[in-house]
Amino acid sequence: MDLGRVCQKADRMGMICRPLQRRDRGAVEEMLQACGAFSEEEVRVALRLVDEGLEEGSEGYYALFAVEIDGAVHGYACLGETLLTRSTWHLYWICVHPDAQGTGAGRALQLHAEAFVRDRGGERIVLETDGRESYARTRRFYQRAGYEEVGWIRDYYKPGSDLVLFCKELSGQVD
Amino acid sequence: MDLGRVCQKADRMGMICRPLQRRDRGAVEEMLQACGAFSEEEVRVALRLVDEGLEEGSEGYYALFAVEIDGAVHGYACLGETLLTRSTWHLYWICVHPDAQGTGAGRALQLHAEAFVRDRGGERIVLETDGRESYARTRRFYQRAGYEEVGWIRDYYKPGSDLVLFCKELSGQVD
Repeated sequence: MDLGRVCQKADRMGMICRPLQRRDRGAVEEMLQACGAFSEEEVRVALRLVDEGLEEGSEGYYALFAVEIDGAVHGYACLGETLLTRSTWHLYWICVHPDAQGTGAGRALQLHAEAFVRDRGGERIVLETDGRESYARTRRFYQRAGYEEVGWIRDYYKPGSDLVLFCKELSGQVD
Repeated sequence: MDLGRVCQKADRMGMICRPLQRRDRGAVEEMLQACGAFSEEEVRVALRLVDEGLEEGSEGYYALFAVEIDGAVHGYACLGETLLTRSTWHLYWICVHPDAQGTGAGRALQLHAEAFVRDRGGERIVLETDGRESYARTRRFYQRAGYEEVGWIRDYYKPGSDLVLFCKELSGQVD
């Protein structure tokens, strides 16, 4: 699915995916805190990536997107090319404000991120998530979107909180 | 195995493991190029991590060790705490000059790195390597040292060059 078609689809859903801008930073901070999924340290790291990605004249190491519903930002995604690889990208963060969960905003961001990566010759997206029961919905979200489990490390984040590694090959027409 | 015992063992082998210093940078650059395992980009990234780790007043994000044989640096290792985890570390680089391969210098660095991580309360080390046949010796090196394969991503680095993810739990007495 190319970027144009993804945008049209999101538009039909009443959403716009667009590059994140400096004025969105407050909304991003609020949704990271409101969604309840992230620790204080995770929020801090997420905001550092946002600040680096927004920096004037930055090399664009991090790509950032916002999803707008009725003119207000309700979600964002952060991704970047993976160092030392030819065509692998990492999807670092997708966050949707609790008020907009279940609207398809997360799906719009995921499709937009994949189309963006494909447009730049990227061939796969890797992402890391948590193995705990409370992340089962997140894992299903990615599995339904064609992501395959490719790694698992017990107690990686902390005792009882495993790393689950997912990867999606973008070369085929899989949407 | 604690750091003192690791040092004694390396010493009996005629080696000294010690923190990498600014004056070692030339030797590191030379061994990265001489060992033939790294692309130009990999050498550049490895040296960037070395420079960040050596920076005065740095937060010590990267820990760097050198192994000396008869007073000359023949190998180095680079590792760091893994962001957003409580007690996981990544071993980013072990490089031994071709002149010193087969001497046990790589093993001395690996044991020193593990003892260093244990001393700081680290409970596991994760590392990434390549799935190609030419890396079979590297993979066996880590497997013999107690590292388990915990992930695999096809064509991750480039077509035909997979990611293999290894992890070693340090909590038990495994050396």
